[in-house]
Amino acid sequence: MTRARAQTRHEPQPPVAIADRRLRRHLRGDSHRLSAVGGLAALALDALSSVAYGPEAIVLALVSAGAVAVRWTLPISATIAVLLLVLVISYRQVIAVHPDGGGAYAVAKKDLSRGVSLLAAASLIVDYVLTVAVSLAAGAASLGSVFPVLSHHLLAVTMAGLAALTIINLIGIAESAKVLMGPTVLFITGIVAIIVVGLIRPHPVATIGSDLGSIHPTEALSLVVILKAFAAGCSSLTGVEAIANAVPAFRTPRVKRAQRCEVALGVLLGVMLIGLSAQIRLHHVVPRGGVTVLAQLSAGALGTGWPFYVTNLSVALVLALAANTSFGGLPVLLQLLAKDHRMPHLFALRSERPVFRYGVATLGVLAGALLFVVDARTHRLLPLYAIGVFIGFTISQIGLVRHWRQQQHRGWLGKAVLNGSGAAMTAVAAVILFASKFSEGAWLLLLIVPALMLLFDRTERYYHRVGFQLGLGQVPAKPVPGRYSHAIVIVPVVAVSHAAELALQAAMDLGGELVAVAVDIDPAATQRLCEQWKQWDPGVALKVLPSPHRNLIETTVGFVETQTDQGRHVTVLLARVEPRRRRYQFLHNQRGPILAAALRARTDAVVATVAARVD
Amino acid sequence: MTRARAQTRHEPQPPVAIADRRLRRHLRGDSHRLSAVGGLAALALDALSSVAYGPEAIVLALVSAGAVAVRWTLPISATIAVLLLVLVISYRQVIAVHPDGGGAYAVAKKDLSRGVSLLAAASLIVDYVLTVAVSLAAGAASLGSVFPVLSHHLLAVTMAGLAALTIINLIGIAESAKVLMGPTVLFITGIVAIIVVGLIRPHPVATIGSDLGSIHPTEALSLVVILKAFAAGCSSLTGVEAIANAVPAFRTPRVKRAQRCEVALGVLLGVMLIGLSAQIRLHHVVPRGGVTVLAQLSAGALGTGWPFYVTNLSVALVLALAANTSFGGLPVLLQLLAKDHRMPHLFALRSERPVFRYGVATLGVLAGALLFVVDARTHRLLPLYAIGVFIGFTISQIGLVRHWRQQQHRGWLGKAVLNGSGAAMTAVAAVILFASKFSEGAWLLLLIVPALMLLFDRTERYYHRVGFQLGLGQVPAKPVPGRYSHAIVIVPVVAVSHAAELALQAAMDLGGELVAVAVDIDPAATQRLCEQWKQWDPGVALKVLPSPHRNLIETTVGFVETQTDQGRHVTVLLARVEPRRRRYQFLHNQRGPILAAALRARTDAVVATVAARVD
Repeated sequence: MTRARAQTRHEPQPPVAIADRRLRRHLRGDSHRLSAVGGLAALALDALSSVAYGPEAIVLALVSAGAVAVRWTLPISATIAVLLLVLVISYRQVIAVHPDGGGAYAVAKKDLSRGVSLLAAASLIVDYVLTVAVSLAAGAASLGSVFPVLSHHLLAVTMAGLAALTIINLIGIAESAKVLMGPTVLFITGIVAIIVVGLIRPHPVATIGSDLGSIHPTEALSLVVILKAFAAGCSSLTGVEAIANAVPAFRTPRVKRAQRCEVALGVLLGVMLIGLSAQIRLHHVVPRGGVTVLAQLSAGALGTGWPFYVTNLSVALVLALAANTSFGGLPVLLQLLAKDHRMPHLFALRSERPVFRYGVATLGVLAGALLFVVDARTHRLLPLYAIGVFIGFTISQIGLVRHWRQQQHRGWLGKAVLNGSGAAMTAVAAVILFASKFSEGAWLLLLIVPALMLLFDRTERYYHRVGFQLGLGQVPAKPVPGRYSHAIVIVPVVAVSHAAELALQAAMDLGGELVAVAVDIDPAATQRLCEQWKQWDPGVALKVLPSPHRNLIETTVGFVETQTDQGRHVTVLLARVEPRRRRYQFLHNQRGPILAAALRARTDAVVATVAARVD
Repeated sequence: MTRARAQTRHEPQPPVAIADRRLRRHLRGDSHRLSAVGGLAALALDALSSVAYGPEAIVLALVSAGAVAVRWTLPISATIAVLLLVLVISYRQVIAVHPDGGGAYAVAKKDLSRGVSLLAAASLIVDYVLTVAVSLAAGAASLGSVFPVLSHHLLAVTMAGLAALTIINLIGIAESAKVLMGPTVLFITGIVAIIVVGLIRPHPVATIGSDLGSIHPTEALSLVVILKAFAAGCSSLTGVEAIANAVPAFRTPRVKRAQRCEVALGVLLGVMLIGLSAQIRLHHVVPRGGVTVLAQLSAGALGTGWPFYVTNLSVALVLALAANTSFGGLPVLLQLLAKDHRMPHLFALRSERPVFRYGVATLGVLAGALLFVVDARTHRLLPLYAIGVFIGFTISQIGLVRHWRQQQHRGWLGKAVLNGSGAAMTAVAAVILFASKFSEGAWLLLLIVPALMLLFDRTERYYHRVGFQLGLGQVPAKPVPGRYSHAIVIVPVVAVSHAAELALQAAMDLGGELVAVAVDIDPAATQRLCEQWKQWDPGVALKVLPSPHRNLIETTVGFVETQTDQGRHVTVLLARVEPRRRRYQFLHNQRGPILAAALRARTDAVVATVAARVD
């Protein structure tokens, strides 16, 4: 199955349903669905890879209060791990209640109000774009730690990665969870090795990166600094919802397997978070120039030999794969919004290959613009990142509370309390995130999220209005046969050629009176055309339309209008050059489509085209 | 008249011929054409503004051999002034011989070979793109010298300027030479004031910019360094051909006025070049951080009060206007190439407003990419800049030599010798430019120029082939009336709506057998459609096409093919939603155009559309 689809957070159908047809036939069997372990590889990379930037974000926030403050990393990570525990328990419930998957938008649409579902969609879009940007930026930083020459060109590295992901997803390749297993195992092994070996060794084996000199605290260690560090570290929790969103991708018994996968994710993520934070404490890690904190830890534990390279390259690879998850998710979310008339219907359009190409391209452009603006620096993106995710967490859990209350099954109150307190915790965390990061960019969310919600709303209203005007769902009037006594087919001609022949032939085949017209833009050219026409003598007179303003479009539209005004049924027939290779299309047909558009916009004529094929 | 047109280097018609129609009526009189002084404002800004970066480029090249080497600025400028003298004399001849203007591409096409004209076009394209990039980068540096806060955001400033120019030119505004007179006079006055006041004062009034410390020579002062400095300074000569290219824009007697204007340009440019270089020598100017050499000179001569601000702001303004000249020139060159079938015909397409929007957009994108790559640093662009211009100089003069020899008028030999030696000098300069800048980026030209020439060649060959296939210039076969005994109109339907009603009505009006078809993509939706159809009862049966692969396009195309294979004349009639506001267009018509394209590409059916208008 296409992995991009497997990781979707929104598609309520099994992901195989949207894969390529031939692929679907192969995959109909349950055996091709995910096991609990396969789910980790296919759905948890986004969450697991966040340990590459989460602990570092905590350190960076704390170091503003001096090098000593960095020892607060461990208790802050422990707090985040507690939040992770609540989320995992809560998402085990979500899996049981929504075995069809869905994600915050689907849940909010089903159980909560329209406004909440718009909020969920807006924050999810922000989240998807940021997942791409953050993961790529962190991946580039990881590569830069291994190959210092790259550390001066991080923006170029991320842009190259983004271009590669966008192109791959536009083409649409089929991946399998098996392919992802290798990098995942390598990544987890590497991180665990760093933790275990690092905890045994009292002193780092190697120190990399340039010394930034003694670190001067710019502010005192206060609650504000600690809350900021907590907020920054919460970026580690992004992605824990992905498994619950894709339950149908699992093998039967789906719910059990998905729950087991979610627990495994929680344990792994918790162990890596705490383990890495313990090491940061133990080895007094502080930010150093040109390398990431994780790279420092790996050099400290494993030295700078091949294990160092393998570990950090697997980190970069897993981050790139994490960025790729958004290319599976966002286009599907945009498709759901388009189906709900909240985004242009374009986004629901799948091309011949099973790819939502407009969604993929949109994501590529947005992520690229964002990376450019922040110059590919991860820590400048994190303030915005976690907030959107936490809004999603909160909405999912509030939806569950509503669900329990409506169902009133046995023991519903206990479950409602659990999810309610989970929702309260994530809501509080979201507020902390927002308040502590407000001046560092979170204020932008106050513009972007409402703007997106407004966009959904306006789009929905527009489609509703148009649907009303088109009489969707109403019984239209009956068409009347034989309305016109006189039908006329107009063939605009610019040159005597095979194309003109085709157009005249098609017009004759249509029946009715036939008029060939030429607009007199250039007297010399018109005279030449008339002579050639005479020579050709196709059995139809060529009517030359005077055009004092030398405007082909206006003159033709005016002529068509005089015909329709006389109560005639008018068809305008145009020949269209169709090159065999589609990439040559843009070399042709400049005036035809413009004329057709003008005729459609301003006259009641039927616009017909006939293809003149060329190699 | 639109100034963008007036400054064109290529349009052989009077520029007014391509201006807006209404405008044209106003401007028919000779009194609206350019005087010699007006010509300076309208056509010479590109050349005159180059003193903002030319002398600085010499200083930057020399300083690599130490601060003392900077005193070579004056002799190098003097050499460039000699070259300027030759060029001005030569272009006076060009004006006399080509009173219809044209530019290197037109001249080469007329008097020289196809290959040379392609070379001219390629180097002109490079030149236009670089004029925009260099002028904007230099203008931003000038602004940054006045407002230091901007000097850290030069790329952003240039991008903003580029966006503004692109948008203005896409909209297409009418400017007059009179509007340009103000900034031009201000600019020339400012530069002359710097020279005169600066030469009187023995010591600078004020020193601005941060001291870069003592300058250590990185190489010895050698012929190579001096040739490099000469090559860099030659960028001052760019733009001296613009007047000769736009002779028809002048008032009668055209040739005399244009020649006078060319001489005035030469004198002004020469005086400014030598004057500024003398001051650089006199005041021992060396590069300083954050400010341009010209800003240093103006602060040294005029202090840092209001004259300083006025002078440097007028420099920035004139540079922006110089960048704008390319937006007049490149789209016209692309149009000429498109008319010669050497570029996609798209570039010959003018939209409702008299703007070559594809040309303008292409220029905006190319210049933006270039500025981004070189991070808006002028000196990184100059290696490429002058070379293209000098190729143009050489081609124009060789064309003249050829012209004199063919005409063999009295005294032709003298003229041929003059232009021939001019051609030799500019050719030698081009070689020096290329060789000395090879490793600094000029090698890129070895890729870009041949690639562009290949593009022109391939495009021309393609259009030639297609023209042959379309039988252009040949007498086609005669169309045959009454070919078909059976005509059928197929109306694909997806929903019962006003659009379906319109389509059925139009199909009935066309006549022939009528078949409404629905593709069974989703059984539930199809059943709903069938029920609604029954309720509507439009007098036509709805034929449901089974679609095992659930593919609307394939199934419809297949059905149409079976009909045409049975010898029927098939018309497929589609309703197209046409919103009153064009910006809503993209919210509609996803499948229709794709279906129409597939039908045109793969069947012989006539594809007809009828507009369903909505608000």
